[in-house]
Formats: sequence, structure tokens, C-alpha cells
Amino acid sequence: MSDKMNTSLTTKELHKEEHLGSSAFITDIVIGMSDGLTVPFALAAGLSGAVNSNAVVITAGVAEIVAGSIAMGLGGYLAGKTEQEHYQAELKREYDEVDNLPEREKSEVRLIFQEYGLNELTQNIIADELAKDRDKWVDFMMKYELGLEKPDINRARNSAATIGISYIIGGLIPLTAYFFTQTPIDGLMISAILTVICLFIFGYFKSKVTGQPPVKGALKVMLIGIIAAAAAFLIAKSFNGLF
Amino acid sequence: MSDKMNTSLTTKELHKEEHLGSSAFITDIVIGMSDGLTVPFALAAGLSGAVNSNAVVITAGVAEIVAGSIAMGLGGYLAGKTEQEHYQAELKREYDEVDNLPEREKSEVRLIFQEYGLNELTQNIIADELAKDRDKWVDFMMKYELGLEKPDINRARNSAATIGISYIIGGLIPLTAYFFTQTPIDGLMISAILTVICLFIFGYFKSKVTGQPPVKGALKVMLIGIIAAAAAFLIAKSFNGLF
Repeated sequence: MSDKMNTSLTTKELHKEEHLGSSAFITDIVIGMSDGLTVPFALAAGLSGAVNSNAVVITAGVAEIVAGSIAMGLGGYLAGKTEQEHYQAELKREYDEVDNLPEREKSEVRLIFQEYGLNELTQNIIADELAKDRDKWVDFMMKYELGLEKPDINRARNSAATIGISYIIGGLIPLTAYFFTQTPIDGLMISAILTVICLFIFGYFKSKVTGQPPVKGALKVMLIGIIAAAAAFLIAKSFNGLF
Repeated sequence: MSDKMNTSLTTKELHKEEHLGSSAFITDIVIGMSDGLTVPFALAAGLSGAVNSNAVVITAGVAEIVAGSIAMGLGGYLAGKTEQEHYQAELKREYDEVDNLPEREKSEVRLIFQEYGLNELTQNIIADELAKDRDKWVDFMMKYELGLEKPDINRARNSAATIGISYIIGGLIPLTAYFFTQTPIDGLMISAILTVICLFIFGYFKSKVTGQPPVKGALKVMLIGIIAAAAAFLIAKSFNGLF
């Protein structure tokens, strides 16, 4: 490999690196926490306008955190497994197609490059050369025809666990205020101040690690939390008035 | 375009079609409903073991549905907008790179095809030909170097609204049982039967539209709901005992 190639490889990796931001683990923690803050906070806020007991708010909040973290964690894990199975099924299918309908697959390759304005001669060269290595040909079809990346099952499992646990930690933050106050409305006031600050902080890091403008992203995360909490408060209050 | 090309285009479209399953609208409804069933059901189940009033269960359930649908709908919409902005920023960057560092970009193209075992001559032909059309070159880099598809902002907005509304409808199903029963435990029994059946049905269609084996997928969705509800019930009950 020439030096030039090496340089461009490094540049490409750096370029990619900037897209990925920090490590996937940190990303999962921040995503789980900032999402975990939102719904339990809004639920607690909603109940604060409708019930008289901090114990009920905390119990409901804990139930939501358990439900949400399991739905998110287990759901994410099973979705990861399904994605893996889907990939394997498509992989088998592409191997079958490459083996049994090679001309059709070759014309699919040509079509991909036709769309990018490459001339027929070049299209043919690419298709013929790609067809020489069956595994790489299938790899190419998986990625460029079907847009499927090989899923990492360990990554899916770890990611689901990290997001689920971070959701629990994030969700407990808005609830703490109800432990140290006497009425749900007092709890809500402290909870709102605490949570809005945390939403901003986690929203900031969430945007950083997902490669968005951090302040703008932080404001968005904060805004979603506030709107969800305000809506839950108003609707739960008016709903409770019906009983 | 030759007949052969036409045939392969049609085949490719059919092939793609099978991956997408039904329309995106139906997919969003089914996803929103089956997800909406899970957390409000589990929250209501959790509270049923801890409080004595159906009104509290319903109020908490409604607050959760409001919070969850806003977090999901508004969150999804804003995420779609962010994705759009991210795409535009990367697009601008790729144009800059193609204009100012064309040789580096060309070697990135060569590298992509080197990974698929194409020889240097072919790599050069592709890079040189691609470089002739600036727009298509950038398109190619966006998709194959960065793996970014042009996001559809209308699609993101509609999708978020559909998922959010379907979450509300799905979430109301487990709550209906608490309207027609006297105690939370009675409500939970009816709610559990009703919701588990619905989780199976929506899980079945969810798997169909997302291209998974439907019965297996339906059982997974059902299982997540049951585990989340059972865990929320046990933890909320023991947590409530602390007060």
C-alpha cells in the first residue's frame, strides 16, 4: 500500500470517527439517561396535579421506570437479535442469487453504477471483476443493493443493557424530589427544576456524542421534556376531575 | 435501455418491495400501537398491585400515554429534522472536499473498491469516471463512504405523528378495563387478558410489516409486555410497602 493510500485511509478513519463521536458505551449511557429523564418526569408531573400523595407519585414513577427500561432494554435486545436473523436470511438469499442467477445479479451491479452516470463499459468491468470473488460480491450486494450492514450481536446486547440501566438512573432523578417534599406540588417544583437542568446537561452530551450542535440539541431535549410534562399535568388534572 | 435492463430493474424493485413489506403508514400504525400497549399496560399493572383506586390507575395511565406519545412523536419529529440538518451539513462538507481535495476523495473511492477485491486499474477507472459528474460523485460519497441516505423530512414528520397517535390508541386499550371494574386487581385481570391478546395481534402484524417471522415476532412482543408488567407489579408492590 502506498503512503498516499495510507494517508487517505487515516483521513477516512478520522472522518468517520468524527461522525461516531465518543465511544458507543458513553453514547448509550447518555441516550438512556436523557430519554429516561423525560417520560418518568412527565408522568410524575402529570400525577402531581391529580393526586395528593407523594407515595403514589413515586410508586407510579418506579412502575414506569421498570416498565420502560424493560421495554427499551429487552425490546432493544430482541430487535438486535431479529436484525441478526434478518441479515443471515438475506445473506443466504444473496448467495443463492449469485449462484443461481449470476447474470441478473450482474445487471443489478451495472444498474447501481448506471445511476451514478458511469458508462456501460465501466459498468461491465466492475460487474465482471466483482463476480470473480463470490464472498466479496455478496458482501457488496448486501451493502450496496440492500443497504444492510452486518449487525454486531454482542454490541446489540450490551447496548440494550446499557440503555436500559441508564434509563433507570435517568428516571430516578425526577423522582428523588418527591422523597424530600411533603406534597406532590412541592415535589413537582423541585423535580421540574432538577430535571430541566439535567435534561439540558444530558441533552448537551447526547447531541455531542450523536454529532449534533450541542446547545441546540440540549434545548430540544429540554423542550420535549417540558412539553411532555406540561401536557401530562394538564390532561391528568382535567381527567382526574371527571371522577 | 435494453429489455434485459428493464427486467432486472423490475426484479430489483420487487426484491426491495419484499423488504419494505406493506406501506410505511401501516408500519407506523402497527409499531406505535404495539409499543403503546406495552408501557401503559405495565404501568397500570404495576400500580394495580400498589393502589386501591381505579381512578389513580387510569389517571397515571393517561399521564403516561400523554408523556410517552409526546416524547415519541415530538422526539421522533425533532430527530428527523436533526437528521435532515446533519445530512445537509455533511453534503456541504463533501462538496467542499470534492472541490478542494479531489485527489483525496478519489483515493477514498479507490479504497472502497479495493476492499471488494477490484484491481487497481478498475479502481482508477471508477474514480476517474465518477469524478466527471460532481453531483453524482458527491451522491456516491454520501451513500457509500458515509452511509447516509437523503432523509425525507415529510416522511419523518408524518411518521412521528402516526406513531404518536397510534401509541395513544394502543395505550388506551389496557386502560379500558379499569373503567368497567371496581378494584384495580379486577381491572388488572381483564386488562391483562385483553392486552396480551392485543400484543399478540399487533406483534403479529408488526412482524409482518417489518419482515420478521410473524408468530415468533408476536410471541416476542407478547413476552416483553408480560415481563414488563410482571416486573412493574412486583416492584411497585414491594416499593409501596415501604411507605
